[in-house]
Amino acid sequence: MGESSALQSILYDRGSLRLLDQRKLPLEEVYIDVKDSTDGWNAIRDMVVRGAPAIAIAAALSLAVEVFDQDFTGTPAEAASFVSKKLEYLVSSRPTAVNLSDAATKLQSLVSRTAETAKDAKSIFLAFIQAAETMLVDDVADNKAIGSHGAEFLQRQLGSSKNISVLTHCNTGSLATAGYGTALGVIRALHSGGILEKAFCTETRPFNQGSRLTAFELVHDKIPATLIADSAAAALMNNGQVQAVIVGADRIAANGDTANKIGTYNLSISAKHHGVQFYVAAPVTSIDLSLPSGKEIVIEERSPKELLNCEGGLGKQVAASGISVWNPAFDVTPANLITAIITEKGVITKSDPDGAFDIKAFIEAAK
Amino acid sequence: MGESSALQSILYDRGSLRLLDQRKLPLEEVYIDVKDSTDGWNAIRDMVVRGAPAIAIAAALSLAVEVFDQDFTGTPAEAASFVSKKLEYLVSSRPTAVNLSDAATKLQSLVSRTAETAKDAKSIFLAFIQAAETMLVDDVADNKAIGSHGAEFLQRQLGSSKNISVLTHCNTGSLATAGYGTALGVIRALHSGGILEKAFCTETRPFNQGSRLTAFELVHDKIPATLIADSAAAALMNNGQVQAVIVGADRIAANGDTANKIGTYNLSISAKHHGVQFYVAAPVTSIDLSLPSGKEIVIEERSPKELLNCEGGLGKQVAASGISVWNPAFDVTPANLITAIITEKGVITKSDPDGAFDIKAFIEAAK
Repeated sequence: MGESSALQSILYDRGSLRLLDQRKLPLEEVYIDVKDSTDGWNAIRDMVVRGAPAIAIAAALSLAVEVFDQDFTGTPAEAASFVSKKLEYLVSSRPTAVNLSDAATKLQSLVSRTAETAKDAKSIFLAFIQAAETMLVDDVADNKAIGSHGAEFLQRQLGSSKNISVLTHCNTGSLATAGYGTALGVIRALHSGGILEKAFCTETRPFNQGSRLTAFELVHDKIPATLIADSAAAALMNNGQVQAVIVGADRIAANGDTANKIGTYNLSISAKHHGVQFYVAAPVTSIDLSLPSGKEIVIEERSPKELLNCEGGLGKQVAASGISVWNPAFDVTPANLITAIITEKGVITKSDPDGAFDIKAFIEAAK
Repeated sequence: MGESSALQSILYDRGSLRLLDQRKLPLEEVYIDVKDSTDGWNAIRDMVVRGAPAIAIAAALSLAVEVFDQDFTGTPAEAASFVSKKLEYLVSSRPTAVNLSDAATKLQSLVSRTAETAKDAKSIFLAFIQAAETMLVDDVADNKAIGSHGAEFLQRQLGSSKNISVLTHCNTGSLATAGYGTALGVIRALHSGGILEKAFCTETRPFNQGSRLTAFELVHDKIPATLIADSAAAALMNNGQVQAVIVGADRIAANGDTANKIGTYNLSISAKHHGVQFYVAAPVTSIDLSLPSGKEIVIEERSPKELLNCEGGLGKQVAASGISVWNPAFDVTPANLITAIITEKGVITKSDPDGAFDIKAFIEAAK
């Protein structure tokens, strides 16, 4: 899957799973073999794999590898129960990961339904394997669709004789998804379409997802790229060096207000000030129509250690002892600062450039 | 000098000089004894002391300590030549520091003038000691004047029943000046005046002057303070948590455009977007009337290592190998985003809130 050049964090063939060890990035590029759900559980718990979609898919695939050559003598119902218990166990590796428990619930209901009519245990396992593989394929396909919709839209909005340079924030690439990425998928599509001049990525303080992971992916894929401090973004825009900002999303409200990594809101204000377009790229699963606006999104605060010590809190103390810290994980970018939202089902635009989005209408039309 | 509580990086009494070892900050607070110009030269070369005004004053005072009990048998002219050569030697510790070579030139011309009429070598030395002491006293007095003008102005512009919270960037305190500080001097004055609710300081990537030095000064002086990532500033303003941003200046053009640490421009755009006041605090020596606007200011670029490795480039590699880096040291904030410029001679305002400053008129009126 993916272009031949694109970084893959999940290497899967039926019966074989290898995960890129993200703890060793960016200094070493090492894949570890995952032979069963125990290996999968450990890989998730030990942060070999991170990013909500990636975790759910890695968990399901670890079990798919385990049951592939399973010597199982029980009934179909017993096979379904076996899969179901293993999924419960996998969920316990990261109990707060919503994607993981959602995926487990769906897969559990699939195997119990299959058990009602299946002839043998093998068919239960095969159904499970196929469903896990579909998750992987679908996530990559969705990201590729985001990429191509985005690249096409950006070229239409910004295209001229000159190629397009973009700025991105945090990591939204192969290392956070099943592959290709969302905002970084759009950058990959612009690059493979020959219309990317250059990608700029922020460090993304305090956990450095930009300098560690996005920079790693961009170098890996040989995409022309430059790293900047988060605080240099306005100066970069003022120099006319970027025509667009593209970011991912953790959650998008019905009006288009978008929660994303801290610093996204900062970038959207700067983009507006400089007349630079600001795009959000995310699968429709990130949209939560139950939230009328971003006001309803509660912002998680993370450990002060991420600012007090280097290496995102894991290294030496850098800051003065005794200083208080405010370390919000996310901020909310209001819809009026967002040019368009790029999804796998197409690009969501708005009639009033300074207004909100009608995402419900878009979703209904896309059905 | 200074309030009893304010941090002092230069401790001087006639015949005695101690410098706060800034290499050990923020983890250790150690002063080192400086007995002569050789100790002074080493302290500057080894970065015990940093910040342009602080370097010049530390150099002059190290020689003042040396000549204080000098057993010198030569003529006044020989004493003047002795001082002059020592000053040349001190300039060689940091040949690019303009303040240091400017100060040396002024002090050299003072001692040669004094030698024309002086009765003995001792009077040459005394004149030099007094001039060096005046530099120290004047810099602190100027900073205190900036602090009191600023605190008074902010209270008038922003004062209500509620105290004022401010955000600052980089380090402009006792660790960059002879004492008290410029922007941080205004914060000290707001605090001692009982009208400061809280000071927020940015990390100030990539060299962490905020988290290392400003945070250290704020904790030391027991000023209520919170550290944030540079990229969290917009979210902080959106929450209504600050009423003003106060920053220092490296250079101010005749129209008020201000070059300062990278990220300052970012903050000024966010401040404008949120209706937060944006102040520059600096001595009039930072104003360069030969520059009509900020366009003429050339921005120095610093080592990529500051972003690639932790501890401002001195520590472990953090970022992906092979990534390009754009690391400008400064950016230019245009006058139209600045509310007012606070100097030791008073506060420079403008008639059109969205326009430029007439600094030449202010300087002439202040004479």
